[in-house]
Amino acid sequence: MKRKVTLKQIAKELDVSISTVSKALRNSIEISEDTRQKVQAFAKLYNYRPNNIALSLKNRKTKTIGIIIPEIVHHFFSKVISGIEAVANKRGYNVIVGLSNESFSKEVINMEMLANGSIDGFILSIAKETQQQQDYHHFTETIKQGMPIVMFDRVVNEIKCDKVIVDDSEGAKLAVNKLIDCGCKNIAIISTKDYVSVGKLRTQGYLDALEDHKISPKASLILKVHDQLLSEDHLDDLEKEIENLFQNNKNMDGVFAVNELYALTAMKVARKLGLKIPEDIQVIGFTDGVLSKHAVPALTTVSQHGKKIGEKAAELLINNLEREDEEDIYETVVIETELIERESTK
Amino acid sequence: MKRKVTLKQIAKELDVSISTVSKALRNSIEISEDTRQKVQAFAKLYNYRPNNIALSLKNRKTKTIGIIIPEIVHHFFSKVISGIEAVANKRGYNVIVGLSNESFSKEVINMEMLANGSIDGFILSIAKETQQQQDYHHFTETIKQGMPIVMFDRVVNEIKCDKVIVDDSEGAKLAVNKLIDCGCKNIAIISTKDYVSVGKLRTQGYLDALEDHKISPKASLILKVHDQLLSEDHLDDLEKEIENLFQNNKNMDGVFAVNELYALTAMKVARKLGLKIPEDIQVIGFTDGVLSKHAVPALTTVSQHGKKIGEKAAELLINNLEREDEEDIYETVVIETELIERESTK
Repeated sequence: MKRKVTLKQIAKELDVSISTVSKALRNSIEISEDTRQKVQAFAKLYNYRPNNIALSLKNRKTKTIGIIIPEIVHHFFSKVISGIEAVANKRGYNVIVGLSNESFSKEVINMEMLANGSIDGFILSIAKETQQQQDYHHFTETIKQGMPIVMFDRVVNEIKCDKVIVDDSEGAKLAVNKLIDCGCKNIAIISTKDYVSVGKLRTQGYLDALEDHKISPKASLILKVHDQLLSEDHLDDLEKEIENLFQNNKNMDGVFAVNELYALTAMKVARKLGLKIPEDIQVIGFTDGVLSKHAVPALTTVSQHGKKIGEKAAELLINNLEREDEEDIYETVVIETELIERESTK
Repeated sequence: MKRKVTLKQIAKELDVSISTVSKALRNSIEISEDTRQKVQAFAKLYNYRPNNIALSLKNRKTKTIGIIIPEIVHHFFSKVISGIEAVANKRGYNVIVGLSNESFSKEVINMEMLANGSIDGFILSIAKETQQQQDYHHFTETIKQGMPIVMFDRVVNEIKCDKVIVDDSEGAKLAVNKLIDCGCKNIAIISTKDYVSVGKLRTQGYLDALEDHKISPKASLILKVHDQLLSEDHLDDLEKEIENLFQNNKNMDGVFAVNELYALTAMKVARKLGLKIPEDIQVIGFTDGVLSKHAVPALTTVSQHGKKIGEKAAELLINNLEREDEEDIYETVVIETELIERESTK
């Protein structure tokens, strides 16, 4: 039986990257004539033909939206999906979800697969690895083939498409201003490494808020947690890093954490060190997930309105799909963040 | 431009159910000859042809697994997906996720769509509405067409396929035995309505544990929460129901809750009523999600090993897909639950 070959298998067989195979199949001039021929011949031999299928299905509407997200065990992304679904269902569309697992090649493979006639357009948030590699050919090619994309949260400025973003730096400013207003003098930030765009933007908001209040930032108060530590399997290491932050800054009286898990871990460390929240130290998180609401004390947090982001993204995509004219007008919609005050601040 | 018509549109147009359209298109003898002809003619006219596509693609392997789950904002399902992904990636498969939103028709639509050449087989957990309606034609037909299915957690005994289940009643017994061992005399259960199979099984485990210890069950201690109250939007109503349980049973000293949210809400109500945990009342939940770990006090819970369920389901499906012989041998694998003891019990 003749089996269908996958992008990955072609890449492995020809010892080139998945990105090269994907570009070669789309006849991209970025790839040498020689390689393009080799890849195309191989793909033909093994019955791989995304473009044919895509073409034959181009004029058929599937009434399905493809969503590509970095990970699924994440309350923010699941809220966004629930928002996309709400609008999609109302307007007669179905959704289907592919996961990049923060990997560039999985993002490319998922998009190729779904673009092959299963869906009408994409709503996506970019994988960390794609952000690092800055290889965006799969987005441009998809759009060139007539399939619209809406990016949310983690977006690429260079790509022309509709975008829904959170004002991350404004959100961070909201949080840090609140801590300053509540009397905090030594405010730490617990953030991610800089290549994660949202971590970078939230750190910028923190610095801006300090500057607005003429407070000099201190390097020792800025913790950029190693990436792996966001996973649940590394909670102990995360706790140690945050405990060091507390030990090195005895006069620290406020913490702004760029996600829920960091904020909750900071509260746990504070409790362990005998500090009272909010009396001795005040804590604000980012992302209003289930953890924030159910924490004891309940966590003051910056809400990103994940559901609203999803709703807006679905509206933009469906409007684009159902537009009669062919004009390319793209919007970038900024969803305002909001400070939800609970018990972890005064 | 000729647009592809959807199952839903055909159903609406002909004023029949989606299930009828789906069966008629597959030429099921359950549907009258007349209706079959009408549906098929309509589908042909509007270019709906799942079977043609499915047939032409039948021998092509997509190396993709379709997952259908009831909802995405749910830690258990996301853990299962992470387990499926881990095994799928190792064995060269991709995954794609469709959401039924607990709706029968969305489950059918998603399966039809994915079965059309996008995937090699399904891993799924059944929507509540499908369980209520007991209409399983979409599973049997899919299997008949040569596409294997693995069911997990919420399964249907009548369907012949591989299954991965949690021993829900044993898990519940573990929890209730623990409460009894810790000295509880008046143990309540906070469960769901009975048509949700896991709620029913966990309630059975609760009753069995009481019987083993010669404790007579009391109706007032058995709370079956209305279904809608599992959603985050109805936390206040849920709280009221649980507060009533406490008010009506002043001597209650133990609570077994069939999910995390019920358990956390019970702890919240206990705190509100001035009861100390675990001194005055001990609480055990089911599902070891993020909420349990981060709760204060940390929640003792029955872990379902969601990741392991996903891993096993993916193994079963891929083994089936890659099996040379055509024998139909199906397995039901029971993943043992485990009691994770934390601070909410003595």
